[in-house]
Amino acid sequence: MLNIVILAAGLGKRMQSDLPKVLHQVAGKPMLAHVLDNARLLQPDRIVVVVGHGAERVQQTFAGQADLSFAMQRPQHGTGHAVQQAVPQLLEGDGGADATLVLYGDVPLVQAETLQRLLQARGDGVAVLTETLQDPTGYGRIVRDAQGRVVRIVEHKDAGPQELALHEVNTGMLAAPTARLKDWLGRIRNDNAQGEYYLTDVVALAVHDGVPVHAAQPAATWETLGVNSRVQQAALERIWQGELARRQLEQGVTLADPARFDLRGSLACGRDVYIDVGCVFEGVVELADGVRIGPHCVLKDVRIGAGTQVEAYSHIQQAVVGADARIGPYARLRPGADVGDEAHVGNFVEIKKARLGHGSKANHLSYIGDARIGARVNIGAGTITCNYDGVNKFETVIGDDAFIGSDTQLVAPVQVGEGATLGAGTTLTRDAPAGKLTVSRARQQTIEGWTRPGKKS
Amino acid sequence: MLNIVILAAGLGKRMQSDLPKVLHQVAGKPMLAHVLDNARLLQPDRIVVVVGHGAERVQQTFAGQADLSFAMQRPQHGTGHAVQQAVPQLLEGDGGADATLVLYGDVPLVQAETLQRLLQARGDGVAVLTETLQDPTGYGRIVRDAQGRVVRIVEHKDAGPQELALHEVNTGMLAAPTARLKDWLGRIRNDNAQGEYYLTDVVALAVHDGVPVHAAQPAATWETLGVNSRVQQAALERIWQGELARRQLEQGVTLADPARFDLRGSLACGRDVYIDVGCVFEGVVELADGVRIGPHCVLKDVRIGAGTQVEAYSHIQQAVVGADARIGPYARLRPGADVGDEAHVGNFVEIKKARLGHGSKANHLSYIGDARIGARVNIGAGTITCNYDGVNKFETVIGDDAFIGSDTQLVAPVQVGEGATLGAGTTLTRDAPAGKLTVSRARQQTIEGWTRPGKKS
Amino acid sequence: MLNIVILAAGLGKRMQSDLPKVLHQVAGKPMLAHVLDNARLLQPDRIVVVVGHGAERVQQTFAGQADLSFAMQRPQHGTGHAVQQAVPQLLEGDGGADATLVLYGDVPLVQAETLQRLLQARGDGVAVLTETLQDPTGYGRIVRDAQGRVVRIVEHKDAGPQELALHEVNTGMLAAPTARLKDWLGRIRNDNAQGEYYLTDVVALAVHDGVPVHAAQPAATWETLGVNSRVQQAALERIWQGELARRQLEQGVTLADPARFDLRGSLACGRDVYIDVGCVFEGVVELADGVRIGPHCVLKDVRIGAGTQVEAYSHIQQAVVGADARIGPYARLRPGADVGDEAHVGNFVEIKKARLGHGSKANHLSYIGDARIGARVNIGAGTITCNYDGVNKFETVIGDDAFIGSDTQLVAPVQVGEGATLGAGTTLTRDAPAGKLTVSRARQQTIEGWTRPGKKS
Repeated sequence: MLNIVILAAGLGKRMQSDLPKVLHQVAGKPMLAHVLDNARLLQPDRIVVVVGHGAERVQQTFAGQADLSFAMQRPQHGTGHAVQQAVPQLLEGDGGADATLVLYGDVPLVQAETLQRLLQARGDGVAVLTETLQDPTGYGRIVRDAQGRVVRIVEHKDAGPQELALHEVNTGMLAAPTARLKDWLGRIRNDNAQGEYYLTDVVALAVHDGVPVHAAQPAATWETLGVNSRVQQAALERIWQGELARRQLEQGVTLADPARFDLRGSLACGRDVYIDVGCVFEGVVELADGVRIGPHCVLKDVRIGAGTQVEAYSHIQQAVVGADARIGPYARLRPGADVGDEAHVGNFVEIKKARLGHGSKANHLSYIGDARIGARVNIGAGTITCNYDGVNKFETVIGDDAFIGSDTQLVAPVQVGEGATLGAGTTLTRDAPAGKLTVSRARQQTIEGWTRPGKKS
Repeated sequence: MLNIVILAAGLGKRMQSDLPKVLHQVAGKPMLAHVLDNARLLQPDRIVVVVGHGAERVQQTFAGQADLSFAMQRPQHGTGHAVQQAVPQLLEGDGGADATLVLYGDVPLVQAETLQRLLQARGDGVAVLTETLQDPTGYGRIVRDAQGRVVRIVEHKDAGPQELALHEVNTGMLAAPTARLKDWLGRIRNDNAQGEYYLTDVVALAVHDGVPVHAAQPAATWETLGVNSRVQQAALERIWQGELARRQLEQGVTLADPARFDLRGSLACGRDVYIDVGCVFEGVVELADGVRIGPHCVLKDVRIGAGTQVEAYSHIQQAVVGADARIGPYARLRPGADVGDEAHVGNFVEIKKARLGHGSKANHLSYIGDARIGARVNIGAGTITCNYDGVNKFETVIGDDAFIGSDTQLVAPVQVGEGATLGAGTTLTRDAPAGKLTVSRARQQTIEGWTRPGKKS
Repeated sequence: MLNIVILAAGLGKRMQSDLPKVLHQVAGKPMLAHVLDNARLLQPDRIVVVVGHGAERVQQTFAGQADLSFAMQRPQHGTGHAVQQAVPQLLEGDGGADATLVLYGDVPLVQAETLQRLLQARGDGVAVLTETLQDPTGYGRIVRDAQGRVVRIVEHKDAGPQELALHEVNTGMLAAPTARLKDWLGRIRNDNAQGEYYLTDVVALAVHDGVPVHAAQPAATWETLGVNSRVQQAALERIWQGELARRQLEQGVTLADPARFDLRGSLACGRDVYIDVGCVFEGVVELADGVRIGPHCVLKDVRIGAGTQVEAYSHIQQAVVGADARIGPYARLRPGADVGDEAHVGNFVEIKKARLGHGSKANHLSYIGDARIGARVNIGAGTITCNYDGVNKFETVIGDDAFIGSDTQLVAPVQVGEGATLGAGTTLTRDAPAGKLTVSRARQQTIEGWTRPGKKS
């Protein structure tokens, strides 16, 4: 039985926030969610999140996740005390194979591979995740014996000169046999300056009891970085974004500047995708082969077909774009926009909950909402679907090959037949028949004797 | 009496500019203004700016600042000569407490705390601002005696091997007793390669006269960095922006990327403010609790209420936005825009000198200028206030709960009554009564026998 | 006779691309084009590009460049084998002055000055381009004799302890007497682990034959960096952009952030030009004295006159802007836009193939295509030139001093006379006479007894 205990009760005072610390985000996801996602990759039998400060909000954020249980730590007397709150929920039953892994909700980026290695290093004993730092100041040092076995963890302030010279430090993460851990947690004492129970003390108890203590190391230092302030949060965000950018590059994506690439979700790219500077990706984004994304675009929950070009400042959200289409610059695709293959959406055009068919074009200054538009339709500049009467929304339907003149208003519900033409400036309130010109237009007249207004004071 | 002399006469040839060097900007403010702002925090009795190259333009830039006086240095024979031009304006009267502090218009970021420390270090003698550099090449070295007292400053080119090994260097900034300084300035000589009078030489004269010379250090190295080229200007801009970003982070603001945050003025943020990548803040900006600013926004002289979300590419200048409003993406708020609580301003909407009332919405492709719009009004897509007749501007007034149909033109001066509805495409030239539908619309007709145009050669 | 052989046959497997490696871009230009551009500055008599993988696409990309010839290397047996394929095309005729310079299509940034130095270093012998690296791991070491003459290049894996301690490494670029080179290429052997012919081996043969081997060094390390992966491509892009930014700074341009400046082409700036963060320049861009470019602009093939301000998010392509004009924010100038002195183009305005005369203004939400607009014209918000009938494009002509009311459609071909006024909302289908008001407008009416729609289920 594998238990994972995640400590998430801290206040995070230095964050200066109303939000519990573990709910602060890295790459658009709460730190605790990062830890959970990686923890789940180990397929644990139980995950216990120890909550305290802001417990309700934390529990609410992860409500409905059936594999999670919560333990309350109020008041808070240290990391050992925190894990102890989870003890009643820990599962046992496999004898020596039972293990409990302790993680931290504010150390978000530890990777599953590293945790796997930690569990393997454990054997049937204890394993601590350690790291070798050039400057170990402030960290607890890992003391090993002549055989290299971990014998003690000494806090920086308690360390003697020989111990201070050690560069291997404790990260806090550890794995231990569950039954033993319960026993040790009951035996650690709080006779220290802070009056707290330290989880670290189980290491000394394990050594005392003759249980071997092993160590494993993370693949990268950033896996063990914790967040206690916005400065640290911002630093970790950048490290992680750099890592995400590197992964894209290694999969063959061209990034004009890896330092100006932001991914807050997942990005799956085909072959020879190009992403220019300043783009932000959120949610689930899929870009097929040969897609080019221009500078400063924002894409959230978007699927784009092969060969499509998205130009600068396009803002696309919950939308689908076909292949070989051209989008932008300054195109706004809102939820439910569905742009067909080879279609064009140009500058200052907004599309919402609307289908734009194969090869159709809406190139300038238009609002298309709640519409079904066929293939090869030309939407003139300044076209507006009047889809809202103040209370209800109605649909506009435009047939294939229609030509919508500039500055036309389509007062929905309304239909434009196949191959129909609407004259510029038309306010269409009734259906326009297929193949014909429909127009609403006042007579043009020139006013004689009219003079331009003068300056009024 | 505290005098502050700021040397601002240099040409700045390497800037390759028509602008005097001290008027070049860091964080949107002339370098000399930075120095002045920090100098004023010391509450000096007199500030003398020594001008020379481009003197008129410098004086004009700071015209009307009553606490400033100017001294002219033409021609220019070195820093000692420069300070000497200020001598006639230096105030005395407090005996040993009289002091003169010398600063540089092209060393913009020295902080008031550092200057305070320099003045305190002075006692009743001289104090120089020094710094310890890993690579002191090129700088004047601070030579101290066995007791640690400053005895000499040796220029790099005149330094012997022992002196070259010193890492403490002179920054040029110093404070001295005013009467003594006047005397020393009269005694320094220009028998050097450049034929210039060096301010540094007062240190040797002080030691010679038995006046103690102390040293103080800045809190950060960037405080003493000078700007002689655009490369240095750009480097200092980035250092300073990094510092400004760090201050925001420490006050609890989330910055998606501190390296892509630009502040050219002041930014006051409430609790849990989020600022995405690529935003630029100018003038005086206030963001209340929970405000979120999306990527690539530009805000200048703006006040935004709690909980409001500003989406990507919004450009807001001299405007006020209430609480829980939604702005953008691509919203342009121009001077005099006043957007109410819970109001929405959407994409490709421009608002100028207009009030948009509580909960009102202008979501798409509209121009609202010189208008007063009540609460709960819906402004349809493509609405335009025709506020300008080529000579005069007129006002549009829209009552609460009005519904403005799409593509409507409101030819000001014009009023729309409470709860009035305007039909899509209306050109409103006279007032629309409350509660009723007003429309101007030509009859829709379908033209029989019309054929589409063919290709013309 | 100077021959330049450029090796461009490699696959670039790690690029994970369908594009041949040498066609991947740095600063918007294929890597091979960078090498060619620098090679041409040496005025060689012949340039031979050795192609292999993707040969057709490489040849097609550089088709019609008369000074290039191609040699095919299929299959590929090493760099020596590659150069050998070029041998039949090498020119001779100047005796000792004949030289062949070997470059690499995936080492794009070697500068002409460096190559010139390499050729000069050669005398009548061989010269290799070498570099001194702090960490030379993996590189071939340059072994010199007591007199400093190059005697051997030892591959890292073949190097003994003394050789491993050498920090001078081989970059692969070399120049050699052409006749000698042909001879040596015939004599190098492939009795190595890879079974390949290494160009490097000509150095040993030269020494063996008593031909002196010299070395030259590049001005900067980045000149010798090769690209084998997207990670390396992105890194080199950033290095090169940093260099391009530095050159702009040194010429007196202010860059708000040199790390957020992208130049993919050429940028010629006058005096006191200011460029804000996040701008991208492509093609040939010229900015005259005092031009200011706001944040996040994209300019491609653009010429802008003195004193003009371009505000945020402007997108300008194949367009010309006069002096003292104001463009943006959110202005889109498309190919053929020609904006006069002191003209204004405001937000959400698109101009294509149109002249906007001196002092004319199109400030809001307009589409101007295929038009000639005179001086001092005011284009109201929401104006649209209806230039397209679905098949043909037609021109709109507007005379000086005309006033185009808001939301007007100009159905081209159509002319507006000098000083004419068009009423708001007009659909202009016939010419508007000079000096008069022309309008098409339906009567405004208020509908009695009308009630607002209710919620429909």
